[in-house]
Amino acid sequence: MVILGIDPGYAIVGYGVVEMKGGNFTALDYGVITTPQSESISVRLSMIADQLKAILKKYNPDAVAIEELFFSANRKTGIMVAEARGVILLCCAEACGNLFEYTPMQIKQAMTGYGGADKQQIQQMVKLLLRLKSIPRPDDAADALAVALCHGQSANFADEFRI
Amino acid sequence: MVILGIDPGYAIVGYGVVEMKGGNFTALDYGVITTPQSESISVRLSMIADQLKAILKKYNPDAVAIEELFFSANRKTGIMVAEARGVILLCCAEACGNLFEYTPMQIKQAMTGYGGADKQQIQQMVKLLLRLKSIPRPDDAADALAVALCHGQSANFADEFRI
Repeated sequence: MVILGIDPGYAIVGYGVVEMKGGNFTALDYGVITTPQSESISVRLSMIADQLKAILKKYNPDAVAIEELFFSANRKTGIMVAEARGVILLCCAEACGNLFEYTPMQIKQAMTGYGGADKQQIQQMVKLLLRLKSIPRPDDAADALAVALCHGQSANFADEFRI
Repeated sequence: MVILGIDPGYAIVGYGVVEMKGGNFTALDYGVITTPQSESISVRLSMIADQLKAILKKYNPDAVAIEELFFSANRKTGIMVAEARGVILLCCAEACGNLFEYTPMQIKQAMTGYGGADKQQIQQMVKLLLRLKSIPRPDDAADALAVALCHGQSANFADEFRI
């Protein structure tokens, strides 16, 4: 099973593609989609859509796991991130019928068994589970891999996270 | 010039298509896209995208004017509306390079010359400017026509509202 994990954002969207085989995980790809602040809202949303569609087409994931929006203290930024997330959900829904959503706490719980784990601990688990030499960079890519792994580990009872 | 006005939403998206010729406005079409609460987020976003794309294709507008998000007191609803708005912006950007955004106050100002006008006054102006027999229903469609008319009346200095 191939899982695409996404850490939604406006300026930076993290993505991670993970293959799960017999309880083992392999990172097929990870990285970030970035959009320049100098561009208009609509151009930035189109950039996210185009690059995400290319990733979906390349890896044809069986499931997409997306981190639930953690609402920003900054209202304007929060709206922009939610707009980007809408675009991300649409592109994923068009390419893959299996969308799942996890809160940061559910991701921490799945990765470390402890909902209050810190970023460092999550990143160490990402590195460990994927047998990587170092922690994936940037953080947004590591976060995206974490949500993909979270889905893989929750796959037996994932229907309650379906969106 | 054909202008598509949009009142963004998640459960209800209002749209209004207006033709401007020599300072006169004609309503070509107006209505709402609705999405059932029983469907998943991703299905509802796809429904909005599909129906909006059909409207864009049918009328091929020279400009799209969209109401700026007025942030809901309800955070969850606010996120959902912003997600829908992201999808709307993407579809419009893909079909039409001319996107403009207006705040409720700018719309009121353009329609009545008074930023504090009430809904009733705006709707009367929509009816008047479009020479309609009655106020367009539902409200979301009337609001969408208002933002299209606002753009038409601001067209000489619209570049500052471009997004």
